[in-house]
Amino acid sequence: MKPDISNGVLFENAAIVGVGLIGGSIGLAARRRGIVRRVIGVGRAEQRLMRAKILGAIDDYSLDMQAGVAEADLIILCPPVRLVIPMLEQIVESLKPGAIVTDAGSTKAEIVEQAEAIMPPGTFFVGGHPMAGSEQTGVNAARADLFEGATYVLTSGKRTDLAALSKLCEFAAALGSRVEILDAQQHDRAVAVISHLPHAIASALMQLTEDCHRRSGKAFQLAAGSFRDLTRIADSSPELWRDICLTNAGSICEAITGIQSILDELKVALDSEDEEAVESFFQKGKELREMYLRVTR
Amino acid sequence: MKPDISNGVLFENAAIVGVGLIGGSIGLAARRRGIVRRVIGVGRAEQRLMRAKILGAIDDYSLDMQAGVAEADLIILCPPVRLVIPMLEQIVESLKPGAIVTDAGSTKAEIVEQAEAIMPPGTFFVGGHPMAGSEQTGVNAARADLFEGATYVLTSGKRTDLAALSKLCEFAAALGSRVEILDAQQHDRAVAVISHLPHAIASALMQLTEDCHRRSGKAFQLAAGSFRDLTRIADSSPELWRDICLTNAGSICEAITGIQSILDELKVALDSEDEEAVESFFQKGKELREMYLRVTR
Repeated sequence: MKPDISNGVLFENAAIVGVGLIGGSIGLAARRRGIVRRVIGVGRAEQRLMRAKILGAIDDYSLDMQAGVAEADLIILCPPVRLVIPMLEQIVESLKPGAIVTDAGSTKAEIVEQAEAIMPPGTFFVGGHPMAGSEQTGVNAARADLFEGATYVLTSGKRTDLAALSKLCEFAAALGSRVEILDAQQHDRAVAVISHLPHAIASALMQLTEDCHRRSGKAFQLAAGSFRDLTRIADSSPELWRDICLTNAGSICEAITGIQSILDELKVALDSEDEEAVESFFQKGKELREMYLRVTR
Repeated sequence: MKPDISNGVLFENAAIVGVGLIGGSIGLAARRRGIVRRVIGVGRAEQRLMRAKILGAIDDYSLDMQAGVAEADLIILCPPVRLVIPMLEQIVESLKPGAIVTDAGSTKAEIVEQAEAIMPPGTFFVGGHPMAGSEQTGVNAARADLFEGATYVLTSGKRTDLAALSKLCEFAAALGSRVEILDAQQHDRAVAVISHLPHAIASALMQLTEDCHRRSGKAFQLAAGSFRDLTRIADSSPELWRDICLTNAGSICEAITGIQSILDELKVALDSEDEEAVESFFQKGKELREMYLRVTR
């Protein structure tokens, strides 16, 4: 496939380990934009890799993890979040000197800490989190434009190699993303608040509503469009969210405690019929929402 | 205006006190469907009432509360929720024998209890909550189809007159709504969970995210579409939500405590790295969401 946008070749050989929605979309975008000379898909399911090749997400594939990554200058690990480190352990001995490894896991602190501890000298790990997705999964849902306008987080810490980080910045930007460089802990705290906690709340709200419905037989019938919108994300994969939560337990517990104590303030204001405090509670939310829309416009 | 759907005339004279979005839409729908012979708008702002008349929401208007309702068989009170009872107090002496009064307040227990206590013998109060709305307010946003497919709650308790309740059921159904009859307390508990708590959470989530953003400088930039959707309702009128919360404080505090303790379960599961419990937390939410979609389809 001919590149339609050329940013120049950033990597000669890239290996994508785990060619699903994210891995497949990275392959499609990188090949389409001509920023990687050759993309190898690495995995265990030959059918899926053949499909990825037909779709144009990869040039070729390998079922052998070690052989698949041996030639690669860039290795992108895209398995479920808790398999990033086990996957890295399998390939770490096969990396060529100067190889840059990144991942696409939703949480970063655990992964970066463990990855940095096992990378051989002369090879580099930079944590990555392309914040794009879809209701669908698998390479059939992959799209070359999945990252356009999306935020792509790369982590930076004391042990991060700056040359590798710069190269990955260029790569992520060339995929069409808005790149944000964050400390891994800082990333995990932020996503706990803006993504993981909202998912937990959606599930909790369904549980509370069901309890109310069971007692009165009516709650669900009264739920209008806003309830439906709010709880849409309760319909996510329990396994996926189990893994995300378990790899970010500290920050999520902190976020839960945080929102519990903000809600406590409202309870106190209501208990004491403090009109001003109740109004100010909603006033703050409204102002912050307006500020947020300005910041992210 | 000729009725385009005729359910037969249910009331000869109706008075709508407070002709804004809800009152105006009731007027438009009732006139369009020919279920009320004559609709009088009652209020203080002549400009707005003139506008309501031009829009076809009312046949005529009165600036005199007492005179405006004196002829009415049906009186619909549509002020902000905390003004329903003060408004009723003003008109209660002027009601004609057999008059049915209803309201459109978002909370019901306080209003119904206080209203029933002051209604003169031979007149009837039935609490109402048409669960429809719009981002906009005022009679200019009123629509004849606002209630089509929407839930219209009518309250029933020990003191509810069943003839008046039936008549209002017919009326609400003729507006195009799906009518639900609930005990006022039951209504308030349900809306605390499905509407008031979500609004409080959206505001609390904005506050928590701002706190995180202030400490790390990045949280808002990482927030994606789902966060934007979830916090959309934080952008609501603080005065409106103050009043709704203050008239439903008990149920809202109960709902806050409820969601806090469900979130506590997740914290415990995360603290103890209980994989099964974490997965089951999200599994429950997913199943209940599917059940809810089936129930309300």
